[in-house]
Amino acid sequence: MPTLKTTFLDCTLARSPRASSTRTLIDTVIELMAPMGVQCEVVRVVDHRVAFGVTSDEGQGDQWPSILRKLRASDIIVLATPTRAGVRSSVAQLVIERLEGTCRERDPAGQYPLYGKVAGVLVTGDQGDAHDAAASTLFDLSHLGCVIPPNSDCCWIRAADAGDDGGEAALPTHRAARYLAHNTVWFARLLREHRIPTDLRRLDAEARVASRR
Amino acid sequence: MPTLKTTFLDCTLARSPRASSTRTLIDTVIELMAPMGVQCEVVRVVDHRVAFGVTSDEGQGDQWPSILRKLRASDIIVLATPTRAGVRSSVAQLVIERLEGTCRERDPAGQYPLYGKVAGVLVTGDQGDAHDAAASTLFDLSHLGCVIPPNSDCCWIRAADAGDDGGEAALPTHRAARYLAHNTVWFARLLREHRIPTDLRRLDAEARVASRR
Amino acid sequence: MPTLKTTFLDCTLARSPRASSTRTLIDTVIELMAPMGVQCEVVRVVDHRVAFGVTSDEGQGDQWPSILRKLRASDIIVLATPTRAGVRSSVAQLVIERLEGTCRERDPAGQYPLYGKVAGVLVTGDQGDAHDAAASTLFDLSHLGCVIPPNSDCCWIRAADAGDDGGEAALPTHRAARYLAHNTVWFARLLREHRIPTDLRRLDAEARVASRR
Amino acid sequence: MPTLKTTFLDCTLARSPRASSTRTLIDTVIELMAPMGVQCEVVRVVDHRVAFGVTSDEGQGDQWPSILRKLRASDIIVLATPTRAGVRSSVAQLVIERLEGTCRERDPAGQYPLYGKVAGVLVTGDQGDAHDAAASTLFDLSHLGCVIPPNSDCCWIRAADAGDDGGEAALPTHRAARYLAHNTVWFARLLREHRIPTDLRRLDAEARVASRR
Repeated sequence: MPTLKTTFLDCTLARSPRASSTRTLIDTVIELMAPMGVQCEVVRVVDHRVAFGVTSDEGQGDQWPSILRKLRASDIIVLATPTRAGVRSSVAQLVIERLEGTCRERDPAGQYPLYGKVAGVLVTGDQGDAHDAAASTLFDLSHLGCVIPPNSDCCWIRAADAGDDGGEAALPTHRAARYLAHNTVWFARLLREHRIPTDLRRLDAEARVASRR
Repeated sequence: MPTLKTTFLDCTLARSPRASSTRTLIDTVIELMAPMGVQCEVVRVVDHRVAFGVTSDEGQGDQWPSILRKLRASDIIVLATPTRAGVRSSVAQLVIERLEGTCRERDPAGQYPLYGKVAGVLVTGDQGDAHDAAASTLFDLSHLGCVIPPNSDCCWIRAADAGDDGGEAALPTHRAARYLAHNTVWFARLLREHRIPTDLRRLDAEARVASRR
Repeated sequence: MPTLKTTFLDCTLARSPRASSTRTLIDTVIELMAPMGVQCEVVRVVDHRVAFGVTSDEGQGDQWPSILRKLRASDIIVLATPTRAGVRSSVAQLVIERLEGTCRERDPAGQYPLYGKVAGVLVTGDQGDAHDAAASTLFDLSHLGCVIPPNSDCCWIRAADAGDDGGEAALPTHRAARYLAHNTVWFARLLREHRIPTDLRRLDAEARVASRR
Repeated sequence: MPTLKTTFLDCTLARSPRASSTRTLIDTVIELMAPMGVQCEVVRVVDHRVAFGVTSDEGQGDQWPSILRKLRASDIIVLATPTRAGVRSSVAQLVIERLEGTCRERDPAGQYPLYGKVAGVLVTGDQGDAHDAAASTLFDLSHLGCVIPPNSDCCWIRAADAGDDGGEAALPTHRAARYLAHNTVWFARLLREHRIPTDLRRLDAEARVASRR
């Protein structure tokens, strides 16, 4: 059984070594995935110099290309974000904007470079507006080619009076973390053996014909 | 090769026999799916007496149970909605509220009744606020157990001066319709042969232990 | 000091006489507004036969016109909704769709019929996705001509294990209810004395000239 | 008649001197406001070193404090953002996160520092998902103390095949720009003469008593 790889993108606003609730939640999921034979790596985005932009390399010391290389070498991509003003953090939004650059590329099979990877999302919030952050992030990743298994999100709603490092996760979080870990890993194994055959270039050509009718 | 079944939930506000742009878009997708050996059925929700509520049967002549039976017998579920005030229609929201009732059930494998079905979404809008309607709807369906393949949405942004029945779809719509049809059908066939093994009841039990530690 | 009038639109899914958490929250605000000399009326929408549609009268026994008359006679409009699947209820969405019909009318001053009314929103949720429901609802009301004072929303996030009638509101809810009551009433009085002078028909004519340049 | 001041926060991802569609739209509004005696200033946020964070000064060369000073000295605040992946840009989200820091302060009247300012939003998008960006941004500004007049947003949906600097704005954009300019300026003048009296500290104290009952 080949080793799977998961890359977690930690989109906290806080640089290392400050504590972050997103990292705590990531660690909960790693504890579940590691025993399933999954190699896990965490990238705390704010520790790197990532430029604003919508291409895969904005030049001038932009460190996004090395992060993107890790994602391309992964089977599972999990974006972890706090909510701020009810939506995903500016760092998470920056990551999505940069990932949009991949949609302009096609690999030899006619697909975007992230096609067929499996995606999940982790959200921490102190007032619970996790739904919007999770929904829009998974949708964006599905647009880039990722597969979204059932129950592929795990939200951690901290009590309003807990500190930023949050304290203990509650039952719904533990439950959702298990659903996410099991389903993303099962789908990643399945898609290792059964590659999505869709050739986007061929469908684009057919669509051009159809739209001219 | 066994026949697959797709049920389209048309969430237009307009009763039959009025024209609806969602139905036009549904027909575009059916034209693509039918030659792949998929049996397609359309339910125009507003033609039925569906009660407001959050359970699977609200009694008193509620016609939701018969619609739900069709969904349970399908491999692919495609919800089609216009946008109103930038979000999915009230009829689409009503459908999602009723579908939430299925999360309280478990089948013999320990899963929700819609687990492992493949979901897609069609959105028509005259100002183009399709993103939110598509993202939240696919997310909700993934919560109920559905799998979201890559590019599983198709939006049709009509020009502001076109009538309600919309005129012709443009190139991006034809392209997205093809991506959606190919990916949902491929995943439905794959999942016919490889059923998701996740037992939610077992994971719930493990989560209870973990949350007490 | 003339009496102000507030109409609360209760967009719960539950018909009378079932308890609803939205009604409990409405009553909290009424207790604050009544002593300020405001006459308050509650309309539980689901108790009336309101048709799906986007005009102000859909005919065939549609009871929306009588609700709309109450709104037109009000100084303050407060929409109260539970969240379902992270967004406002289907009943709230239905109300917004019907209200959109008013944008096709102009009063003698060249304004939509709800221009210059003051709007607020109450949201109850059991997982806390109140932000999206509040933001989109206030935005839609501002499009119809309403003024949104600061802190014009009040959300009540019930604990996950509380029943549907919710128990007691917590400190942040009491605080937000006060901000909302004071600010909506103060603005309503101000706008009684200072009517917004904007003539939309005149600005439309200017815009047509500008867009042809 | 005292001069009013408007500060526009241009939240494009592109640094100067690159063209940006948000700036084009800002200029359209300035052309309308300037003849009304309003002094207008544009801050292109990405040209400054603004740190990620949720306080009003993150130290270490953070240039946010000088931008915040401009906002505090303004009567009208207009945030202009492109949409990316269907929502406001990462730069706009960063601005909102930094503005949240102001909610921890109270001025001598017991209000947040931005209380009683008038807010508007400009959105440019190439697929039209402007609703969510506008709604969430105006809502966030209303939470910080701003007043949202009717029709306080102006969206510019560029044709899919136009370049990034967009070409000409269409009729709906010209119309919305006029509504926004007239209503924000009228409200700013009104609120210069009639300051919102709400004392948040006093209401907080009352809420504490009520929640203990």
